[in-house]
Amino acid sequence: MKLYSYFRSSASYRVRIALNLKGLSADVTQVHLTRHGGEQHTPEYRAINPDGLVPVLVDDGQAITQSLAIIEYLDETHPAPALLPRDARERAYVRSIALAIACDIHPLDNLRVLRYLKRELQVGEQARNAWYRHWCEQGLAALEQSVVRAGRAGQFCLGDSPTLADCCLVPQIHNALNMQSDLTAMPALMRINANCLALPAFANAAPELQPGAE
Amino acid sequence: MKLYSYFRSSASYRVRIALNLKGLSADVTQVHLTRHGGEQHTPEYRAINPDGLVPVLVDDGQAITQSLAIIEYLDETHPAPALLPRDARERAYVRSIALAIACDIHPLDNLRVLRYLKRELQVGEQARNAWYRHWCEQGLAALEQSVVRAGRAGQFCLGDSPTLADCCLVPQIHNALNMQSDLTAMPALMRINANCLALPAFANAAPELQPGAE
Repeated sequence: MKLYSYFRSSASYRVRIALNLKGLSADVTQVHLTRHGGEQHTPEYRAINPDGLVPVLVDDGQAITQSLAIIEYLDETHPAPALLPRDARERAYVRSIALAIACDIHPLDNLRVLRYLKRELQVGEQARNAWYRHWCEQGLAALEQSVVRAGRAGQFCLGDSPTLADCCLVPQIHNALNMQSDLTAMPALMRINANCLALPAFANAAPELQPGAE
Repeated sequence: MKLYSYFRSSASYRVRIALNLKGLSADVTQVHLTRHGGEQHTPEYRAINPDGLVPVLVDDGQAITQSLAIIEYLDETHPAPALLPRDARERAYVRSIALAIACDIHPLDNLRVLRYLKRELQVGEQARNAWYRHWCEQGLAALEQSVVRAGRAGQFCLGDSPTLADCCLVPQIHNALNMQSDLTAMPALMRINANCLALPAFANAAPELQPGAE
């Protein structure tokens, strides 16, 4: 397997955690999103992924885009340990958490969006940082309530084994903390985050530990 | 089953298509996102979904948020006709398309984001419309290339049966057309969209046909 990745990419971080949890390794090609005008814009990379985003997993000749599609694929092709539970209701709960992060928090704070705010809309740095924190804080506060009300969390979002939900939660909290977001309203998520980071699979996937990290 | 929905919501539209394809019906409660200051902000609705978004499916006492989690749940609990193929590689392809729309196009053009641009960043209407079209056009153009290169499309995104990918594609193209986006660069997607809309399951899910549509 080959993984096109960027150390700072939150979506790549999710996939690194999933690979680690499953004890899988992939040959990693770094796609540096800011160097040389952005390596994701080269014709070579666009031939692999036309939308110029990371990560991409290449397995068995097929390029798979979108981190959640990659993790579901890994879970189906390498079932143990499972990152999705068996019960349909529990699967829906886990996917809801992952998607709340992947659809409603993370995309708004993506590099290309922040660049559009800066270049096309002339939004200054302070207002861009406020935008970033707004979506992190509002999204994670709502997620805290969802997780607490569901009553399904143990050490992790679902019971005592890490799932797809945790693979998404930890990178999002990493981003939120990097931007000095106020996370005091989400003690349950912060507790789960700490439990995750105590596991080598999560700790070793951290952006600052990846080759090429600055 | 009970569905909290809004006729104009693209994510609700995806779920309506999936329900129709499976021949399922749900009791629909309209959550009007702009009337009375937004019914999604009421304490009653926040008790169902803390992030105040639609749709929510309530089945067997569990509230399921996130349209893709809802559709996967419906597919697992009502397997025929299948909205995801059996093969892991094909499933990854279908999910990649759905997620490219649900993560990288749609959230940027969501009502609350357009409101933030207007109210917090004082972005005028013309610039907001350009923002909206930018993410539609760039995202759908990349998706066109991905679908064409994959060579898996037939009448629909994967072969000749509708899948989760088509449930996401049609509402996104509906939004893009509403905002006068330029879709000339995506003939394959437009052909699939037309094939979908020829089916009653898709046609009957259109926003303008829903109760309460304005």
